[in-house]
Amino acid sequence: MSTPPVAVVIGAGDATGGAIAKRFAREGYSLCVTRRNVDQLTVLADEIRAAGGTAHPFGCDARVEEQMVELFEHIERDIGPIEVVVFNIGANVRFSITETTERVYRKVWEMAALSGFLTGREAAKAMLPRQKGTIIFTGATASLRGGVGFSAFAGAKFALRALAQSMARELGPQGIHVAHPIIDGAIDTAFIRDTFPERYALKDQDGILNPEHIAEQYWQLHCQPRDSWTHELDLRPWMETF
Amino acid sequence: MSTPPVAVVIGAGDATGGAIAKRFAREGYSLCVTRRNVDQLTVLADEIRAAGGTAHPFGCDARVEEQMVELFEHIERDIGPIEVVVFNIGANVRFSITETTERVYRKVWEMAALSGFLTGREAAKAMLPRQKGTIIFTGATASLRGGVGFSAFAGAKFALRALAQSMARELGPQGIHVAHPIIDGAIDTAFIRDTFPERYALKDQDGILNPEHIAEQYWQLHCQPRDSWTHELDLRPWMETF
Amino acid sequence: MSTPPVAVVIGAGDATGGAIAKRFAREGYSLCVTRRNVDQLTVLADEIRAAGGTAHPFGCDARVEEQMVELFEHIERDIGPIEVVVFNIGANVRFSITETTERVYRKVWEMAALSGFLTGREAAKAMLPRQKGTIIFTGATASLRGGVGFSAFAGAKFALRALAQSMARELGPQGIHVAHPIIDGAIDTAFIRDTFPERYALKDQDGILNPEHIAEQYWQLHCQPRDSWTHELDLRPWMETF
Amino acid sequence: MSTPPVAVVIGAGDATGGAIAKRFAREGYSLCVTRRNVDQLTVLADEIRAAGGTAHPFGCDARVEEQMVELFEHIERDIGPIEVVVFNIGANVRFSITETTERVYRKVWEMAALSGFLTGREAAKAMLPRQKGTIIFTGATASLRGGVGFSAFAGAKFALRALAQSMARELGPQGIHVAHPIIDGAIDTAFIRDTFPERYALKDQDGILNPEHIAEQYWQLHCQPRDSWTHELDLRPWMETF
Repeated sequence: MSTPPVAVVIGAGDATGGAIAKRFAREGYSLCVTRRNVDQLTVLADEIRAAGGTAHPFGCDARVEEQMVELFEHIERDIGPIEVVVFNIGANVRFSITETTERVYRKVWEMAALSGFLTGREAAKAMLPRQKGTIIFTGATASLRGGVGFSAFAGAKFALRALAQSMARELGPQGIHVAHPIIDGAIDTAFIRDTFPERYALKDQDGILNPEHIAEQYWQLHCQPRDSWTHELDLRPWMETF
Repeated sequence: MSTPPVAVVIGAGDATGGAIAKRFAREGYSLCVTRRNVDQLTVLADEIRAAGGTAHPFGCDARVEEQMVELFEHIERDIGPIEVVVFNIGANVRFSITETTERVYRKVWEMAALSGFLTGREAAKAMLPRQKGTIIFTGATASLRGGVGFSAFAGAKFALRALAQSMARELGPQGIHVAHPIIDGAIDTAFIRDTFPERYALKDQDGILNPEHIAEQYWQLHCQPRDSWTHELDLRPWMETF
Repeated sequence: MSTPPVAVVIGAGDATGGAIAKRFAREGYSLCVTRRNVDQLTVLADEIRAAGGTAHPFGCDARVEEQMVELFEHIERDIGPIEVVVFNIGANVRFSITETTERVYRKVWEMAALSGFLTGREAAKAMLPRQKGTIIFTGATASLRGGVGFSAFAGAKFALRALAQSMARELGPQGIHVAHPIIDGAIDTAFIRDTFPERYALKDQDGILNPEHIAEQYWQLHCQPRDSWTHELDLRPWMETF
Repeated sequence: MSTPPVAVVIGAGDATGGAIAKRFAREGYSLCVTRRNVDQLTVLADEIRAAGGTAHPFGCDARVEEQMVELFEHIERDIGPIEVVVFNIGANVRFSITETTERVYRKVWEMAALSGFLTGREAAKAMLPRQKGTIIFTGATASLRGGVGFSAFAGAKFALRALAQSMARELGPQGIHVAHPIIDGAIDTAFIRDTFPERYALKDQDGILNPEHIAEQYWQLHCQPRDSWTHELDLRPWMETF
């Protein structure tokens, strides 16, 4: 009996990460999902299992090198060969430049860029010997454009895009597919519902992104044959200005 | 009995246009395919029909306004409502700036940009009353970068990208999905086989794009729900430098 | 006695082209200025001469290959070696996609892109034997972004940018500096004064571009030593949103 | 007697930072120059003074918030109102993704991005009450493109570009000019001479950038009137491939 392939979702705490995990689980992947507090993964793991899938929840601070090294080593050793890694930690904050503290600037970068780097590096280490695998970093509008109030957030997202590009150019010719979808719009999450209710009201007209539809795109990216890989694509509601 | 939905492929002469037509035909679309010489569409139409599909070949010079207006009016009137339009005419030439004649510069633009404009405008006219439809313009490496010898070709492809962006921003909020995939690599065509044999030899390693895989992406673009539309994505063989 | 160096401004009809011509005339350049109707160059030529400069006005349709070939040959033969060429013809129109006629789409391209190509090619022919010279193409906001109503204008400006990039990559290593400044804002012209009066009212706060300041930048571009060339830069009023 | 205007150069250790400092000193600016080790500023300060200028060398670790806050407060209080701030700290390293340690990734970001953030924020604090000033961040090829081996360096430079964009959009309408020149080529420095001798040999043909010419561009940026500001421009030797 062969081991099922393994997919890892770093930052499976929100709607998007969860939907991605469930999408890959549906295809028979063993899902390793992480967030800082493992208890908050119970619902997701239960959902995956209830649907007949396999879930391995991990409490892991993706900013801490040793934890990430250990996580990937553990998965490779005890669960199976990692075929897919999705990095899905954001840190959307907005402060004018003079009100951005060093602490905020650093924390946003640690969450959205440093964690992405550790994820990407450990994924590469696991995949390179097999010359095979898919690594997906979730981008945002701020990955492409620094705007008023976004010194910290755009700084981190630009850095993550630089990582995705550098890794794609380095690892593509080694058989590893590195992609950077850019989510340009509000997603149907509790955060948007509670913070931007007028935005959330657009849901009835499909004006905000459905996490399951994002997840479907991630799955399609992984399915691309290696003669036709996409590195970057945008995802945006039809009525979104851009 | 309801009319099957209609897909139009302008420039179905090469491997890519043909593969796209066959992909949509497989899903039950009535395929309207064009190239300048209708006789050269016989094989494609036969293949579509042999597979149980419906094909309507048209000889049509996409650079000529009246022909394009008439084509779209004819299809809407006699075949059915157009749901998908794919523009797939290229004009890849390479000349140093001083050796680029006015005739070449103009012809390349007429083939790759003016034809795209007429296609896009007529598609928009047909789709706007229904507030629904997908329009896809095929891009290339030269859509993003003007390189040595590419004054004419990049000029036309940049113009086509401007069209796709302008139309996406104008028509998206009207329910019409405008996409611009960028093919960044050699495609498995007779042209590449005959002109760049050493490039073609990479086929065994998946180093050139399979037209069927490109077609699959076009189909997936059309399938995207309207809360998650992609406007631009790249498609590139794993071993391609970028 | 040595011949003064020659600068050519194609499209010296508006405030910007005129200011550029006067700026180079001030430095001792012999100014060859063109627009379709030579009579409309009288004021500019008189101003240049009144300031002690040399002006050669030419009526020339920059879209017509023979006229452009002849113009450059005439200048090189009878006036002197061309050191600087500035292309400054725009064609700012705005129409929704369905209201853009083939005639408008083609005319805008002929004015803003084809003319630029003929200018650039003839400039290159003149400069290549000397391995020296500066060619500047005027860009606009629409050079970088296709927006609602800009299918035609952005198409032409994107094409011009492709030309500038292709020529820069081809001619830079031959000693010819090709630059593409992007004017991102309203310029202090009669057109803006008459068409967008509320915009023009920002002039008192420096909210629109002064043509003399644009001209100064073109002069500075030409002065750059060849170890430090700029290919692209933006120019924008301080209060302009971007 | 009025106080001379003040220019601050953060990272005046290398050839570029030194040349920029001397360029502004020549125009009568009081130069506040920093690097980690104040002793290494002696030569520069002496040169500025020997040429009749004013120099204030500071030993300051630009990554440390308190040191930067104190530096700017001290200058504003004891030396004069800051009109120009140049951030010029790089951290060019190259490692494959799997060989990039967390320490390197973090240090490169701290040097090239966090320091830039602290510089920009303190500059903004000083300038905002006067609604006036120029802030320049030095960019590099890696600011625009993540390449093989550049996960760390491109990450930091992308982040700095996001900062420059965010600040330009926020502070422009407040009268503060934020610019991001992109140096795309080797600079005539001891580092290039010692590390890439074959590159350095191009100096005789102007194939590497002269720091004084870069400095001239920085000065020109500062001189731009506020109706015609440049946010981004490239600087590249004529023979450099791009």
